[in-house]
Amino acid sequence: MNSMYQQLMQLPLFQGVNADKISELVEKLPFHFLKFRNGEQIMAAGDPCSHMRFVVSGKVRLETSFTHVRVTLVQTLCSPHVLAPDFLFGRDTSSPFTATADGPCGILQLRKSDYIQMVNSDKVFLFNILNRLSMGSQGITTSLLSMSQGSAAERLAIIVEVLTTQSSTNVLLRYRQKDLATLLGTQRVTLIATLNRLREQGIVEYTSNELRILDLRTLRNYVKRHQQSTEQS
Amino acid sequence: MNSMYQQLMQLPLFQGVNADKISELVEKLPFHFLKFRNGEQIMAAGDPCSHMRFVVSGKVRLETSFTHVRVTLVQTLCSPHVLAPDFLFGRDTSSPFTATADGPCGILQLRKSDYIQMVNSDKVFLFNILNRLSMGSQGITTSLLSMSQGSAAERLAIIVEVLTTQSSTNVLLRYRQKDLATLLGTQRVTLIATLNRLREQGIVEYTSNELRILDLRTLRNYVKRHQQSTEQS
Repeated sequence: MNSMYQQLMQLPLFQGVNADKISELVEKLPFHFLKFRNGEQIMAAGDPCSHMRFVVSGKVRLETSFTHVRVTLVQTLCSPHVLAPDFLFGRDTSSPFTATADGPCGILQLRKSDYIQMVNSDKVFLFNILNRLSMGSQGITTSLLSMSQGSAAERLAIIVEVLTTQSSTNVLLRYRQKDLATLLGTQRVTLIATLNRLREQGIVEYTSNELRILDLRTLRNYVKRHQQSTEQS
Repeated sequence: MNSMYQQLMQLPLFQGVNADKISELVEKLPFHFLKFRNGEQIMAAGDPCSHMRFVVSGKVRLETSFTHVRVTLVQTLCSPHVLAPDFLFGRDTSSPFTATADGPCGILQLRKSDYIQMVNSDKVFLFNILNRLSMGSQGITTSLLSMSQGSAAERLAIIVEVLTTQSSTNVLLRYRQKDLATLLGTQRVTLIATLNRLREQGIVEYTSNELRILDLRTLRNYVKRHQQSTEQS
């Protein structure tokens, strides 16, 4: 149990809250602890996000598929992590991904209404969730405004930024090469040139149907980096 | 004063709150009411967003400029509206736009810490802000996942979706044509073909240095519409 509290304490949503307070909350609120076996599905794409779900042990693999092109982004979230906190409120609360246990894994979950009660119990929870939700908008706005080439690489970076988190691991795209070229709005020959350049920079490695992201941080900041390194035009 | 409360009541952030409660809050919390003359600057791009700012009378013109390409998106927010609520919390709280009074206009503003107190005073405010902040992430995720052509038109739609609100009016882009082509990652001849197609559909009209969006709703939903109208591949 103690290690579960320690896991929670490391989450941005619990930042600034001490172990005693967390233990008090876990006693008081109807948290459910669910155990999943390797390969078991935790939620399917399209499922309603009705609970705040914290990964407190093990790893979860997420698969996010595009609707019209055969491209799927796969990523792993290691504990501690939170699953899709930005799909719990708002207008479209259906999960954008399928989540599967990657090895044995433990999820602590709390119904939306109980999460609201938790947020109401302490301003620090309120700040944490407002910060977390705002960061998504800010990141994508800054990336778009920093675009300088409108290149396939910049578009790939923006897609990856929106669909992953900073602490995602094992991020890869599975695709039909034709479909990845379509998605990035480019010809196949330009796509290959782009991927080769990213490979030379140590950011990705790829085959004919899979792109593995080796340096997620650099790719997610690919567009913003230009902002720092180039003079304003 | 009454009409100011009525304006606030129409805002999504005050949804479900009655006039008495709003009047009580405006008495209790240190709201400031600021009047701006036509053309006066309300905030500059890069200014820290330290206050929740509600446009309660008149209109505000926002100008959002790209950093590396000479493209600026201009839009008008009519009262009631809220200025950049997703830049008040999170990591990058500097305004992405310059806001200027478009005719005489009134702003009711509340410091971030006082806004937090307001949100804490009633769960309905909490739901409203969590809904508002989540909708941004959800919209851009759905748009990206619905892309089917990776075309310049889809990219334009995504940029407009991120940088405007559903109720923005007079949305236009000012550019050097070369720079708009760069931003959308396309050749000038393809850009013109794209703009002509959008013009034929009644979505935009354009000149050599200005694109006026006539049907914002359709353009913002341009990518998502495909999701509804096309079979899943």
